[in-house]
Amino acid sequence: MAGETVITVVGNLTADPELRYTQNGLPVANFTIASTPRTFDRQANEWKDGEALFLRASVWREFAEHVAGSLTKGSRVIATGRLKQRSYQDREGNNRTSIELEVDEIGPSLRYATAQVTRAAGGGGGGGGQRPQVQQSNDEPWSTPGSSNGGGNSGADAWSTPGSYGDDTPF
Amino acid sequence: MAGETVITVVGNLTADPELRYTQNGLPVANFTIASTPRTFDRQANEWKDGEALFLRASVWREFAEHVAGSLTKGSRVIATGRLKQRSYQDREGNNRTSIELEVDEIGPSLRYATAQVTRAAGGGGGGGGQRPQVQQSNDEPWSTPGSSNGGGNSGADAWSTPGSYGDDTPF
Amino acid sequence: MAGETVITVVGNLTADPELRYTQNGLPVANFTIASTPRTFDRQANEWKDGEALFLRASVWREFAEHVAGSLTKGSRVIATGRLKQRSYQDREGNNRTSIELEVDEIGPSLRYATAQVTRAAGGGGGGGGQRPQVQQSNDEPWSTPGSSNGGGNSGADAWSTPGSYGDDTPF
Amino acid sequence: MAGETVITVVGNLTADPELRYTQNGLPVANFTIASTPRTFDRQANEWKDGEALFLRASVWREFAEHVAGSLTKGSRVIATGRLKQRSYQDREGNNRTSIELEVDEIGPSLRYATAQVTRAAGGGGGGGGQRPQVQQSNDEPWSTPGSSNGGGNSGADAWSTPGSYGDDTPF
Repeated sequence: MAGETVITVVGNLTADPELRYTQNGLPVANFTIASTPRTFDRQANEWKDGEALFLRASVWREFAEHVAGSLTKGSRVIATGRLKQRSYQDREGNNRTSIELEVDEIGPSLRYATAQVTRAAGGGGGGGGQRPQVQQSNDEPWSTPGSSNGGGNSGADAWSTPGSYGDDTPF
Repeated sequence: MAGETVITVVGNLTADPELRYTQNGLPVANFTIASTPRTFDRQANEWKDGEALFLRASVWREFAEHVAGSLTKGSRVIATGRLKQRSYQDREGNNRTSIELEVDEIGPSLRYATAQVTRAAGGGGGGGGQRPQVQQSNDEPWSTPGSSNGGGNSGADAWSTPGSYGDDTPF
Repeated sequence: MAGETVITVVGNLTADPELRYTQNGLPVANFTIASTPRTFDRQANEWKDGEALFLRASVWREFAEHVAGSLTKGSRVIATGRLKQRSYQDREGNNRTSIELEVDEIGPSLRYATAQVTRAAGGGGGGGGQRPQVQQSNDEPWSTPGSSNGGGNSGADAWSTPGSYGDDTPF
Repeated sequence: MAGETVITVVGNLTADPELRYTQNGLPVANFTIASTPRTFDRQANEWKDGEALFLRASVWREFAEHVAGSLTKGSRVIATGRLKQRSYQDREGNNRTSIELEVDEIGPSLRYATAQVTRAAGGGGGGGGQRPQVQQSNDEPWSTPGSSNGGGNSGADAWSTPGSYGDDTPF
């Protein structure tokens, strides 16, 4: 991929990540990051909370399992990824769009916390007995942002053809 | 402001910017930036367009007049600013939110174009006969991103109290 | 602060963070993040490592202690902060400059790892017996990026007057 | 390319861009962007300039000619690109590194200026009689960030093998 809109967000999870599996057994985690800016009020000489930005986010594969196993409601995170727009019909049949974050990297912020980090087995995840064999045959499964072209069940592809996952699509 | 979600977008304007004035005479320009990523299809050995991201954007004051006077439908731009979320009710009375870009800096991309640049009079705009006096009394009108705290009619404030502009609010 | 150059970096620590204390007892951690891009070689049909970017980084106060206690050589991190330029004289007496990252947020990437997160006591750090009382008297110690104006011994100030820390300045 | 360190800078050119041509006739423009943050001094109740960041930048091909033809000393610009590290020997023979910006998009900021934009002929440049034929044979010359893999004389490649341009390399 090239020319995508990259963004970094710092905020807190509004709930525990929801981990699901597509029909093909691909793990995906969804969650919302609330990012609250602060304004310095010169009259009052103090900082005040501004309006929060709530950004829906998704992360795929072993990475999804790591997120679901490490972060919980309230966790302060730093996340970077690409903004994606998705079209859908609401219950009244109106066409609507939403903007979401396809996460490339995320981690718990160490500003107000410490973390004990454990490298995943295999250097690319591991531990997920539910991951199907098709995963293993991907020569270049996660690697880096933008590398997911051509993979039939990559996260990026999933956005453009969301119907292909059947009824258990996680969004 | 601090802790805001900053983003840079490159794309094309879907239409000419709409320039309006609030009840107080404050100029504001609204427009949409379409950003289209490209994927390299290794099978076909060629680049293909991905799904576009359409981001609604706004810019205020003299800056708005500069944008309206310089950019047109199709212009390729580079813009940076802060993501803002806005709540509203649709025609059915449902509560909805939209994400928009509060522009801090924008300019025409020179990748496929040249530009003849003219500095605005006064170092902060000028030329706009329609700008009210209240503008001039702001001690720190444009300066830099995040500097607009405390100003009664700054763009940032407008988002948190959109109703304060009366019927001619531009969004 | 406003108008600063903000950047997000993903990479691996080249060594354990070095934790030091200024003359005033202010903790600071320094480390280097190596970020290696990858190019897809279409002839060879494979990804190849590009030239790494090595970015020197610093983080202050309790945050520094969290980093030093959580990250080690090789840790994959995601970090965001502001680029700072620093002038110095080399051993030959030539004036030189270096570019460094003043970290606002950092965390271990969960792409290839899991993390067990522990919130710091007090909501702002704690546990550091070596932190002097002067720290406590700061009305607005960590809060958010850009909030460190006015504090006599904040990280931001330290960059503009590096000499003020005496001989034990950590850079 | 994937996994690169992307950055957006807003600032002023310290001098006119220097336009040169490599031995192969490839245009390249070099310039420095000075970005000055501002701090709000609460004691003095006013904004003060912080220390400027000076970032050396380069831009290639027709894009370089557009930049050289549109921007001058003092121009306020918004630029986005990738941070690149370069190793070199100084006059004393010491190994040194510098960090530079490989520009993906740049344009004049409209904050304090207006611009009259002219699309380049051909949709990808044009007008440059000095551009060699070898340029034309590139199937995918500029397009988007990250697309320059595989091109023998692309900007990205030039950084990793700077010697290949002969004596007239512009850096």
